[in-house]
Amino acid sequence: MSSKYSESGVDIDAAGKAMKGISRLVKATWGKEVLSEVGNFGGLFALPAGYNEPVLVSSADGVGTKLKLAFMTGRHNTVGEDLVNHCVNDILVQGAEPLFFLDYFGCGRLEPGIVEAVVEGLARGCENNGCALIGGETAEMPGFYNEGEYDIAGCIVGIIEKEKVIDGKKIEPGDSVWAFPSSGLHTNGYSLARKIVFEDEKLGVDDEIPGTGGTVADLLLQVHRSYLPEIRSMREIVEIRGLAHITGGGLVDNIPRVLPEGCSVRIDRSSWDVPPLFEYFREKGGVDDREMHRVFNMGIGMVVIIPAGSNVLVEKGDYRWKPFLIGEITEGSGDVVLA
Amino acid sequence: MSSKYSESGVDIDAAGKAMKGISRLVKATWGKEVLSEVGNFGGLFALPAGYNEPVLVSSADGVGTKLKLAFMTGRHNTVGEDLVNHCVNDILVQGAEPLFFLDYFGCGRLEPGIVEAVVEGLARGCENNGCALIGGETAEMPGFYNEGEYDIAGCIVGIIEKEKVIDGKKIEPGDSVWAFPSSGLHTNGYSLARKIVFEDEKLGVDDEIPGTGGTVADLLLQVHRSYLPEIRSMREIVEIRGLAHITGGGLVDNIPRVLPEGCSVRIDRSSWDVPPLFEYFREKGGVDDREMHRVFNMGIGMVVIIPAGSNVLVEKGDYRWKPFLIGEITEGSGDVVLA
Repeated sequence: MSSKYSESGVDIDAAGKAMKGISRLVKATWGKEVLSEVGNFGGLFALPAGYNEPVLVSSADGVGTKLKLAFMTGRHNTVGEDLVNHCVNDILVQGAEPLFFLDYFGCGRLEPGIVEAVVEGLARGCENNGCALIGGETAEMPGFYNEGEYDIAGCIVGIIEKEKVIDGKKIEPGDSVWAFPSSGLHTNGYSLARKIVFEDEKLGVDDEIPGTGGTVADLLLQVHRSYLPEIRSMREIVEIRGLAHITGGGLVDNIPRVLPEGCSVRIDRSSWDVPPLFEYFREKGGVDDREMHRVFNMGIGMVVIIPAGSNVLVEKGDYRWKPFLIGEITEGSGDVVLA
Repeated sequence: MSSKYSESGVDIDAAGKAMKGISRLVKATWGKEVLSEVGNFGGLFALPAGYNEPVLVSSADGVGTKLKLAFMTGRHNTVGEDLVNHCVNDILVQGAEPLFFLDYFGCGRLEPGIVEAVVEGLARGCENNGCALIGGETAEMPGFYNEGEYDIAGCIVGIIEKEKVIDGKKIEPGDSVWAFPSSGLHTNGYSLARKIVFEDEKLGVDDEIPGTGGTVADLLLQVHRSYLPEIRSMREIVEIRGLAHITGGGLVDNIPRVLPEGCSVRIDRSSWDVPPLFEYFREKGGVDDREMHRVFNMGIGMVVIIPAGSNVLVEKGDYRWKPFLIGEITEGSGDVVLA
């Protein structure tokens, strides 16, 4: 029987088939708090007990044009992890532990293999962060996206005791600014990076980026790191007064988001080696220094502000990636000075 | 000073300007539970007190190709309301009251006027449903979307006492099936509807759809209804055993999502008048009857299942749109019989 609806470009049965393959991956992320089944209208999550004044912390985000690298390489199974880790970091800056995640996948025509690969990445990211992938929407929208392309967005909900919210209010001049290294671009600066790599330098995805020892595909698809275990560990040994997730806007725009009135920050650029990938973009793109620090993370994924007296304690933490001291809080009005 | 980043198609300052216009609209939806500020990494929402075993109910969704109507008409200020109401209904079927909402807006190039119009709709929808618009992401992705086009997605989080979750488990043969009328297509069937209206019938957005008394633009942009006040009112007077939000898949696919084992449903098609808009699609599209009921809502936006003995009580509720009896639960294995 022909279906008028599929002639118009939407295949309800294909959506059903894609759902089946996804459901196993999704359920692997569920703990006992998840009370619903795949296919329910809403996802049900029992609030963990033991909070006096629980505050829900939530964030929505996308992956940006990093997706173009997935399209070009056919590697669709990591962008979901990028998305989850990005969202985990966004609520982590206020101290929250993730509870659950929902995703949106929009495309012109559903290709079950691609949807499954994307969900594989989402599920891996959720599992690694102890977060339930509780719901999502897969939308087939003929004429909206180029053939074989899609967009994804996600929403995370976490929780924290009200009195433990990290809001930057205790930050004061003299505090130390530490950084955790990023794995590469994370999910920002891709429009400029792609212009330089593909349009100006005319590299292919399997070409090496000169000076880096890695290929375009490998370096530009490096997974956005989640700093959840690092911050958990650090928090046990020192007082964390402020956190900034270095995303769009870089160090320059993101650190001021957590500074209280009367504070600026001085970053000592000699305190870390900017990875060769960023130096390549600086040189080939002719990008000036201030803009480099606004478009790219320059090798820093998460910034942590602690009392200066705690510096000696920081290294006692259990980290996959070692933090390094990059500067200090000064008196001022929300400026980021790159010294 | 020229900006390399804006040459590559992304304008960070334009995003900043758009944010400013949005912030006023967003804040109007906030109650005292919202502890964060616009621009924080995550949105903070204090959990309401008074729950013994609180369950969070969440859902993510999009608007689908109804967006094309917004693009064609330049009316961008209602699709956000569609999105919020759709999400409110999705968690309402499990009995949840909405707490907060987050949105994702993806486009090729940010046009502040359009973003603001979309957020105006989101904010109106949130305000009408007593839901805080607590966060969102506005993504500028050159080359992803056609000029002047965008996609939007949303995520809602609501709450309900665990013992009050509506899960359909108490539904039994003999129960009555009631329906609340939809306002039109809501957010489903647009790919087929657009094919019939624009490709086959070659109507313009300002043309009247024959037999309906309304224009293409007005009828196809009718706002998706939220049934939150209706279900609140009905729930005070009768036991609601199951709810189904009639979205993609229509009555045929959505009612079975809440039926327990051993139950089917018989829908008496003579019990309501299918609105002329749907009859127009049936006739002009040559769509068969079963498919009509899978692609379109056929004039029904929300289905409510209650004990048959409560039928006389239903009309005592306070509704904007009167519910009508459309069928009953029968013994069976999850079928929807259109009698």
